[in-house]
Amino acid sequence: MKIGFIGLGHMGGPMAKNLVAAGHELKVFDLVPAAVQSLVDAGATAVVTAAEAASEVEVLISMLPASQHVEGLYLGDTGLLGAIDASTLVIDSSTIAPESARKVAAAAAERGITMIDAPVSGGTAGAAAGTLTFIVGGSSEALERARPVLEKMGKNIFHAGDSGAGQVAKICNNMLLAVLMAGSAEAIQLGVANGLDPKVLSDIMQKSSGRNWALELYNPYPGVMESVPSSNGYQGGFGVDLMAKDLGLAMEAALQTRSSTPMGALARSLYALHSGQGKGALDFSSIQQLFSDL
Amino acid sequence: MKIGFIGLGHMGGPMAKNLVAAGHELKVFDLVPAAVQSLVDAGATAVVTAAEAASEVEVLISMLPASQHVEGLYLGDTGLLGAIDASTLVIDSSTIAPESARKVAAAAAERGITMIDAPVSGGTAGAAAGTLTFIVGGSSEALERARPVLEKMGKNIFHAGDSGAGQVAKICNNMLLAVLMAGSAEAIQLGVANGLDPKVLSDIMQKSSGRNWALELYNPYPGVMESVPSSNGYQGGFGVDLMAKDLGLAMEAALQTRSSTPMGALARSLYALHSGQGKGALDFSSIQQLFSDL
Amino acid sequence: MKIGFIGLGHMGGPMAKNLVAAGHELKVFDLVPAAVQSLVDAGATAVVTAAEAASEVEVLISMLPASQHVEGLYLGDTGLLGAIDASTLVIDSSTIAPESARKVAAAAAERGITMIDAPVSGGTAGAAAGTLTFIVGGSSEALERARPVLEKMGKNIFHAGDSGAGQVAKICNNMLLAVLMAGSAEAIQLGVANGLDPKVLSDIMQKSSGRNWALELYNPYPGVMESVPSSNGYQGGFGVDLMAKDLGLAMEAALQTRSSTPMGALARSLYALHSGQGKGALDFSSIQQLFSDL
Amino acid sequence: MKIGFIGLGHMGGPMAKNLVAAGHELKVFDLVPAAVQSLVDAGATAVVTAAEAASEVEVLISMLPASQHVEGLYLGDTGLLGAIDASTLVIDSSTIAPESARKVAAAAAERGITMIDAPVSGGTAGAAAGTLTFIVGGSSEALERARPVLEKMGKNIFHAGDSGAGQVAKICNNMLLAVLMAGSAEAIQLGVANGLDPKVLSDIMQKSSGRNWALELYNPYPGVMESVPSSNGYQGGFGVDLMAKDLGLAMEAALQTRSSTPMGALARSLYALHSGQGKGALDFSSIQQLFSDL
Repeated sequence: MKIGFIGLGHMGGPMAKNLVAAGHELKVFDLVPAAVQSLVDAGATAVVTAAEAASEVEVLISMLPASQHVEGLYLGDTGLLGAIDASTLVIDSSTIAPESARKVAAAAAERGITMIDAPVSGGTAGAAAGTLTFIVGGSSEALERARPVLEKMGKNIFHAGDSGAGQVAKICNNMLLAVLMAGSAEAIQLGVANGLDPKVLSDIMQKSSGRNWALELYNPYPGVMESVPSSNGYQGGFGVDLMAKDLGLAMEAALQTRSSTPMGALARSLYALHSGQGKGALDFSSIQQLFSDL
Repeated sequence: MKIGFIGLGHMGGPMAKNLVAAGHELKVFDLVPAAVQSLVDAGATAVVTAAEAASEVEVLISMLPASQHVEGLYLGDTGLLGAIDASTLVIDSSTIAPESARKVAAAAAERGITMIDAPVSGGTAGAAAGTLTFIVGGSSEALERARPVLEKMGKNIFHAGDSGAGQVAKICNNMLLAVLMAGSAEAIQLGVANGLDPKVLSDIMQKSSGRNWALELYNPYPGVMESVPSSNGYQGGFGVDLMAKDLGLAMEAALQTRSSTPMGALARSLYALHSGQGKGALDFSSIQQLFSDL
Repeated sequence: MKIGFIGLGHMGGPMAKNLVAAGHELKVFDLVPAAVQSLVDAGATAVVTAAEAASEVEVLISMLPASQHVEGLYLGDTGLLGAIDASTLVIDSSTIAPESARKVAAAAAERGITMIDAPVSGGTAGAAAGTLTFIVGGSSEALERARPVLEKMGKNIFHAGDSGAGQVAKICNNMLLAVLMAGSAEAIQLGVANGLDPKVLSDIMQKSSGRNWALELYNPYPGVMESVPSSNGYQGGFGVDLMAKDLGLAMEAALQTRSSTPMGALARSLYALHSGQGKGALDFSSIQQLFSDL
Repeated sequence: MKIGFIGLGHMGGPMAKNLVAAGHELKVFDLVPAAVQSLVDAGATAVVTAAEAASEVEVLISMLPASQHVEGLYLGDTGLLGAIDASTLVIDSSTIAPESARKVAAAAAERGITMIDAPVSGGTAGAAAGTLTFIVGGSSEALERARPVLEKMGKNIFHAGDSGAGQVAKICNNMLLAVLMAGSAEAIQLGVANGLDPKVLSDIMQKSSGRNWALELYNPYPGVMESVPSSNGYQGGFGVDLMAKDLGLAMEAALQTRSSTPMGALARSLYALHSGQGKGALDFSSIQQLFSDL
């Protein structure tokens, strides 16, 4: 299949490589020459404009940092939508505001172009291993057209609803994740301060009603689990600033719908505080440091 | 085995019945005649003082509402410890302050009596079904002595550490549970307000990093799961006021150790607010009502 | 002075009347005929387009609900800036996002038009009495040109800084106000629950380090002060939904600057929760109802 | 007047000196010899037991760190109440749990001894200058008996209600103070992050509805005010750990009355977090450091 891929960063790069490895013919574009070269080395073809990547392909995938980049890429007089054939399926895997996703998909639809939002979870490790989770907003038909491509980059594909719903679901999930992580961190520390062993307490809670993803796979207390960031100086993983960004998107979604999200809003402030203390590049489980003297 | 059982309320009653059903010989005591009669009907022997229940038994079990009741029962000049033989194993399954549990266990130890704290989770349904979880504080030897009895009332038995550790672990778990529940409730509502179906969103989060006990077994949004309180008008289950009590114990443990628990403290205030609005007797998943117009 | 006035709602209407009463010659515009008629009755001249209100005046004042209205009015191909003479001073008194205020002021500056943001505090009572506080963003020269007009509508005029700074200062103030109000409400209730008289406690705190605007002028507990909304069923005053809107602007400003605002974010969630319970139209001091059974 | 004074620490020491300076005859007791010597140098008489300080005096004043010290001093078989004449007025100026204050006062009343709780605000500076605020719980008659003595140590005397009410009012006030301080700190930082000058913004809010004690007398942002801790490296003043202690008392009072105090509970967690980061000895306005890179 002929695929255009725009945005070859920490996530987009390994995702694109998995498509090349699966035998697809890729035209790739990024502003950073080294990122492009890495894909060329893997077998992709470099193009020099985004429009070239978008033309004469069956599928176009974009993976960009934020709403303004996605809107800037596709919309406006010089936007990419004018250069995309109506037969091309557009997949935006960026994590952006649902409102932006809906706006771009609506503009695409006006030109007869089918577009889905398909943000991912699973981090850079999942991107490299091809085990990402895709949370898709758009029609069922569009999702089915995308499925063969998505399956080369991920192992779980969820259909959240119409355009923008993929973004909403990802935002809700990540807000809840931040709450789980901060809540688990302070619960473990409360136990430690009261004389418990963090591993024993984590095990008990994981087998009880405190069970959650953080305790199961990503314990924030150093030494409880091997091979997680907390046991490696909070290096790697999903950064504090990325979590703060996603919590910001959640807060925007809450503001627009006048929703009350006290736990999520507190989690955002704690992550912003933590980032402000110079911890933005650490893994997000390092929120444990706010509660424990580590 | 000869067992004394003090406290035959919503939890203690069915727990004691399971011991009778397992063939143990029970002497039971409670201030409420009907509660005693119910056990007598099941095959237990009624006694008229707590001291009688505590004498000439291999195991004495107590299940009382709060710290002051447990301290009042065992301690002081007229306390039960004076009436208990050193060969009797004492199991307190009440959920109380760790400090109280340690104080009573230490007083017992001074008289050569072995005592463990073994608070439970699993609610009245688990008490009736004999599927409670026991979280034990005390020595390993004491736990092994207790195990045959506990296994008649529950299916999971955890050893949290020394005296009081059972209480600490339960308190930490329930604080985390409150955070999970409130966080899940507001995440689902944020999705619903942004156009998502609560069941679809819950499924996605449950299979992603937002996964937790509440989404898995006890979804707070009406209609997502069958046979949970949220689909039954928030009746039954684990009451708001009971959760508020456990959060109060968590806050006391945090105060005594100067621990910072922002998420847990917020959860407590939300549960106190919800209770203050007349919802104290509803199941604790009804915290969803604070966020959704249900 | 010849003045154009656009937006004659609950705030804009009485503000415009004070200008008429001060002898200024007003051209007024609003989408609601009754609002226009009320000003005509007071002596103003009705015009049928915003552009007419903006042309051939020394000062143009706008008072609109939100960012999108202000951007919609002034910007774009059909925006008002194209119809305003460079000699006209533009005063926008709407409470909007600082970013929007800066964008519009910059677009005005490109056409040689001087514009200030001058959001107000003081509510509808202050608007009617001519005792509003104006918080101005823009150059000192522009503020001095505006002063004679502003002084007819308000009694305090502050210079916060450059374009947008008026909005920032208002947003920060109102976020703090929400924190003060919620904090005062829960402190009073904590005292009441512990046996204190709300009036005695309020007096003590007002004379101590708990002193703040809410206790001084706007006590949220019914019966402590006469002539405030709390003693009148929380009618009138500054509505819960308006406070929620301002808190939303504060959160946006926090998101854009990655600022940690835990107290303000919690206040927003409490106000959103309160509004969601059907209290959006009550005065914002009704947050007391979340804590007290009133 | 013959006065016994027990507890000559940072607060008690200067308070006792003011009584000596006013011509009263003091018998003083403290566990720290240097503290006693300092009072002897000032003209007081040292005694070697608390009971001596309490006997044959018209007024007995105690100023101790926490509830357990006050209960330990007065209650029990060897407690001081047994050594105090019924004609002696007892004034406890310690800041302790209302419950403890009520318990001790009730025990005193059983022996016919009149006792008031009279916690203070104003810090060590107020103690030295004799400008403390006393918040009194007890009968009006008892307060009038105490007034001549209190007036030598403070300038404001409030009557909060019956026994324990002084403690409740102080606790409520200090909880509100923590909320004001944290709220002011984050509001100022939000403005600074959005380009405002902290002094200009503080002035505007102080003259608007954000007005509060912190902005008026104790601005937390360095350089805005002279002669406050924030402009002196957050040295001196009222320590973070002391504020955390008072917030702990507020939380206990909230737990006992099932009160919802979301803002106060969050403030406590922020102060506990700040203390946990090694800032316990700084002035409590240093909470600004959580939000600003100072």
